[in-house]
Amino acid sequence: MLIGQQSWIFETKPVIRSTATIGGPFEAKGRLTDEFDLLHDNLWMGQDSYEKAQTVLIEQACETAIQKGGLKKEQIQFMLSGDLVNQLTPSTFAGRSLKIPYLGLFGACSTSMEGLAMAAYLVHTKGANHVVAVASSHNAATEKQFRYPTEYGGQKPPTSQWTVTAAGAAVVSNEGNGPRVTSATIGRIIDMGLSDPFNMGAAMAPAAVDTLEAHFRDTKTSPEDYDLIVSGDLGEIGLAIAKELCEQKGIKLKENQFKDCGLMIYREGQPVLAGASGPGCSAVVTYGHLLNRMKQGELNRILVIATGALLSPLSFQQKESIPCIAHAVSIEAAEVRV
Amino acid sequence: MLIGQQSWIFETKPVIRSTATIGGPFEAKGRLTDEFDLLHDNLWMGQDSYEKAQTVLIEQACETAIQKGGLKKEQIQFMLSGDLVNQLTPSTFAGRSLKIPYLGLFGACSTSMEGLAMAAYLVHTKGANHVVAVASSHNAATEKQFRYPTEYGGQKPPTSQWTVTAAGAAVVSNEGNGPRVTSATIGRIIDMGLSDPFNMGAAMAPAAVDTLEAHFRDTKTSPEDYDLIVSGDLGEIGLAIAKELCEQKGIKLKENQFKDCGLMIYREGQPVLAGASGPGCSAVVTYGHLLNRMKQGELNRILVIATGALLSPLSFQQKESIPCIAHAVSIEAAEVRV
Repeated sequence: MLIGQQSWIFETKPVIRSTATIGGPFEAKGRLTDEFDLLHDNLWMGQDSYEKAQTVLIEQACETAIQKGGLKKEQIQFMLSGDLVNQLTPSTFAGRSLKIPYLGLFGACSTSMEGLAMAAYLVHTKGANHVVAVASSHNAATEKQFRYPTEYGGQKPPTSQWTVTAAGAAVVSNEGNGPRVTSATIGRIIDMGLSDPFNMGAAMAPAAVDTLEAHFRDTKTSPEDYDLIVSGDLGEIGLAIAKELCEQKGIKLKENQFKDCGLMIYREGQPVLAGASGPGCSAVVTYGHLLNRMKQGELNRILVIATGALLSPLSFQQKESIPCIAHAVSIEAAEVRV
Repeated sequence: MLIGQQSWIFETKPVIRSTATIGGPFEAKGRLTDEFDLLHDNLWMGQDSYEKAQTVLIEQACETAIQKGGLKKEQIQFMLSGDLVNQLTPSTFAGRSLKIPYLGLFGACSTSMEGLAMAAYLVHTKGANHVVAVASSHNAATEKQFRYPTEYGGQKPPTSQWTVTAAGAAVVSNEGNGPRVTSATIGRIIDMGLSDPFNMGAAMAPAAVDTLEAHFRDTKTSPEDYDLIVSGDLGEIGLAIAKELCEQKGIKLKENQFKDCGLMIYREGQPVLAGASGPGCSAVVTYGHLLNRMKQGELNRILVIATGALLSPLSFQQKESIPCIAHAVSIEAAEVRV
């Protein structure tokens, strides 16, 4: 099960039995409109705060995924959830209404794959029959907490990224049909000394490549084993740096093999600067777009590396650099048999 | 492995191979002085912020535990850590310096047993040979973030609790000597509508009892199977409520069988109002005092139920009640054989 230093092989290949993706109004104007289960037409989702709106996203993502999987809430053993809001408020309040035994996770934007890795682990090792893993973010809740009130209209440099308003949930099961989770690599925290919170892609790129290297070393695989390697979310700047680091380290990638969730979700022309980010971004791009492409036979094996910038407003004020982490999960299409 | 709805049985009984407990100056005046590996004589621990001081506590707890276990950092597969500071800043920065593949957890004060449960799970299922689980809190970092600057001298009601300055770490292994982790129960989020952040014991008591009930139901055990059931941290108010709820639910406890970590760590006369709290409290009381009593043969089987109040300053401002959770882990002395 443990393979190498920091990876797990899931020989039973737990099934991603169903997923759900819920988005906001800005995502509704994006490139992946057809791959959401539900798109809200305003940021409030009928609530009186953005954090409560994010709770609704999580509840809807979990309930929809569970329903699509033909299950009832009571059949799900554990809910694994995390988000960017202090004390994981939206996750906690969704856990309260869903009443599923709950494990809170925090890895900033890497939480999506921290959750999927743990969910597959629990199912593979018979610690659960069904687990729901969910990751979410809300643009306005995030802006308010980490940066300025949006009403202030603060200008951002072109290296900064746009936090996605979305929640993506996956029900991982020991039975059913769907893409299978085959392995996972848990990352170390890497900090190369970058400290600009408006350029997190650059800060996160070395963590992504550290985990990528560890994944190939531990699982004795190479880029050739994957149709697509996708980070979430490095944006334009971070992806370019990650590709350069791969080249330096002798990781040979094919043309167009390494992409980024943060560059897939929005259309050309949407004002997202260096790209999208937020735990909800890699969750909905993976659980919507990428798994749909797998189901359609366009992709057989993918590796999703979710990256997290583990800074806080306080660590920035205390003039600290940005510690980063990345967790990788490999997924293969239902019909692939080794 | 999964037993019942929300519990795990660890048939291989992963070993708590070594632990370490690091405390602050107020803990140095407490009742458990002899059961700390290191006590700092001021709150700053040589750093220029309380959050950085908390990072030092975590680093020292992990390094000491790993060293006491006769291991090197490189032999530890995963570090599981969580704390109360926004974005888990102290955990993250400790993970950066320790360089051990890292999983961030958040369950407020329940994080101590969320971490121990997951560590035992990973070792039992051969996903790791050695895992370090650590939980921590720092009184001044917590006061600053959740309440008032301590310099303000704000008065508190007698129902409030005192956040412990401490970090407790446990190395859980597939080999070695020490107390064994035998099962764990992951809690649901329970919210009975209480909203007073200065009375979190009362808010958390129903979550503790919900998990206790689930544990007995799932594992087919009863209070008679344990020499001691210990919550962390309900304080005086919460413990009294929890005992009453147990009685109502027909959970028959012996005299003095149900105690609370928050009532063990300080001496009579220390101004801690209803008792101690913080993820560091249940961690150091369990990993120091309780495991020492097990090693001395005074206790054979204990159940630790760590409780967390999952509120945030923001959820309080938005007039929300306090969602609570509790995770339980059962530990037996090294020599107990069933």
